[in-house]
Amino acid sequence: MTAARAAGAAIGARPVMLAVGGDSGSGKTTLARGLAEAIGPHRCTSICVDDYHRYDRAQRSALGLTALSPDANHLDIMEQHLQLLAIGQPILKPVYDHRTGTFARPEYLRPRRFVIVEGLFPLFSKLSRACFDVTVFADPPEELRHRWKIRRDTTGRGYTEAEVRRELARREPESAAYIRPQRRFADIVVRFAPALDGFDPPGTPSTAELLLRPTVQHPSLTHLLTDGAGAALDLNVIRDDDGTPVDCLRVSGRAGAAQARLLARALWDSAGCGREIPRGLGRLADGAHSEPLAITQEMLLFHLMQEVYQR
Amino acid sequence: MTAARAAGAAIGARPVMLAVGGDSGSGKTTLARGLAEAIGPHRCTSICVDDYHRYDRAQRSALGLTALSPDANHLDIMEQHLQLLAIGQPILKPVYDHRTGTFARPEYLRPRRFVIVEGLFPLFSKLSRACFDVTVFADPPEELRHRWKIRRDTTGRGYTEAEVRRELARREPESAAYIRPQRRFADIVVRFAPALDGFDPPGTPSTAELLLRPTVQHPSLTHLLTDGAGAALDLNVIRDDDGTPVDCLRVSGRAGAAQARLLARALWDSAGCGREIPRGLGRLADGAHSEPLAITQEMLLFHLMQEVYQR
Repeated sequence: MTAARAAGAAIGARPVMLAVGGDSGSGKTTLARGLAEAIGPHRCTSICVDDYHRYDRAQRSALGLTALSPDANHLDIMEQHLQLLAIGQPILKPVYDHRTGTFARPEYLRPRRFVIVEGLFPLFSKLSRACFDVTVFADPPEELRHRWKIRRDTTGRGYTEAEVRRELARREPESAAYIRPQRRFADIVVRFAPALDGFDPPGTPSTAELLLRPTVQHPSLTHLLTDGAGAALDLNVIRDDDGTPVDCLRVSGRAGAAQARLLARALWDSAGCGREIPRGLGRLADGAHSEPLAITQEMLLFHLMQEVYQR
Repeated sequence: MTAARAAGAAIGARPVMLAVGGDSGSGKTTLARGLAEAIGPHRCTSICVDDYHRYDRAQRSALGLTALSPDANHLDIMEQHLQLLAIGQPILKPVYDHRTGTFARPEYLRPRRFVIVEGLFPLFSKLSRACFDVTVFADPPEELRHRWKIRRDTTGRGYTEAEVRRELARREPESAAYIRPQRRFADIVVRFAPALDGFDPPGTPSTAELLLRPTVQHPSLTHLLTDGAGAALDLNVIRDDDGTPVDCLRVSGRAGAAQARLLARALWDSAGCGREIPRGLGRLADGAHSEPLAITQEMLLFHLMQEVYQR
């Protein structure tokens, strides 16, 4: 491992690829953006793979398809482009203009050392998943996701709340059939949710639960965190929805900065890269700071750095 | 070789690929269209690779680039797409709208048994050329090409003659630097030109000269055609512009249908495919029939069929 290898990819070198999958409004962008900023734009390529639509908006509407239907997308081309990026090749990615519902000039993208891919379908097929070193699924409770999506689409995209709710209802069968099943293929499931005990003061950030599946090698945290409910930071073996045992790292919104920094330091040291912990992690869409988000991003950074340093 | 192999490509099977390169207005489309029709739409994918522009028209204009400059195009992506087609994979090809000078919805293309690629740059790079089984360069004399381009662009594309002439002058340095040098990489150079002797009655189609380079195996025609100027059909060893010897099949616009059919039959039998000679070859852009064009297309068909039957 040379310094040059760690700093930037040679042309055609295989980048480290991270997928962030999840439904519309699940917080993928907030999660991915902070990561990309921490890595730095000269070392990181960020891509949203939701533009591989087979039809424009008018045609989808006429056909009665939503954007969540695999039939409404060229998923084979998405797979092809992910494979090309994974071997260090550039792509000409289609660009869908959400304002007009039609296509704009395609975007030429060359993978840098790290490639962060977010979208509805990156974990959909085996071929696609095989392109990634680490896969994440953003999985807030549906009620929270609806709230997030309504807030984003009514402030940023010009829809009314009633329109967003109608669209959510229309998409529900396809969310259930095609998007949520991708959760089971993620190395890490990220679940933000209001604290269960209800004693948090107003303005406390959501709690993050990270399900850490044994499909990748997670940092050893048992010397820092012990099983036990109620602590601001804890690590418990739980049963996942399907009954399989999984490690669950829970970071409460009440976690103090000092506690969080201790955990971050441990993660960072485990990655063995010897650099400073990046600053600025944990920024929410509204600009507020969230320690649970920061730690989630640090966990993902740990995996990205580990990929570089273990190759 | 099975019948199924000859009839249609299995998914992922390597198609037979033909490139038709040449400058704007050189007759590439007329040549390629008749071929594609003869092969039949269910067996043939036709692609124009002139849509890989890096900029839209306004940006090119601001940058002082023409579409003929390699810097104005994503030629690496064109190469990548040709490679994908050559291994039987689909592509999502960018689409440039000549009317608006901007980009439209990309086109999903899956290669059929035969792929005919025309454009300004298919013979530009070694990587691109390596994707083809047979390469052709359309090379009419500049004066004739200008006349063709003016006719097409003033009738079909809404330009005035003065505008087309200005554009031709503006593009001349880049034609000379990037387009015409591709001629030397073609297996077959196709040169349509008015007959030299000037005795043809008005309305006689242009003569076709086919330079047949020994880079592919051409059909043996010496038993049919002997050296000798003046015949309606002749085959001569000549020196190419760069001094190398090359076989030149010359088909005069005076060639009679009977003579032409005899040659076509010989070409077709050499390919060994045992089917009927396709009809409808030799149709010019204005709908008139040209025996020289028909024989040119039959020569290319010979090579495509030979590729299928010799694999």
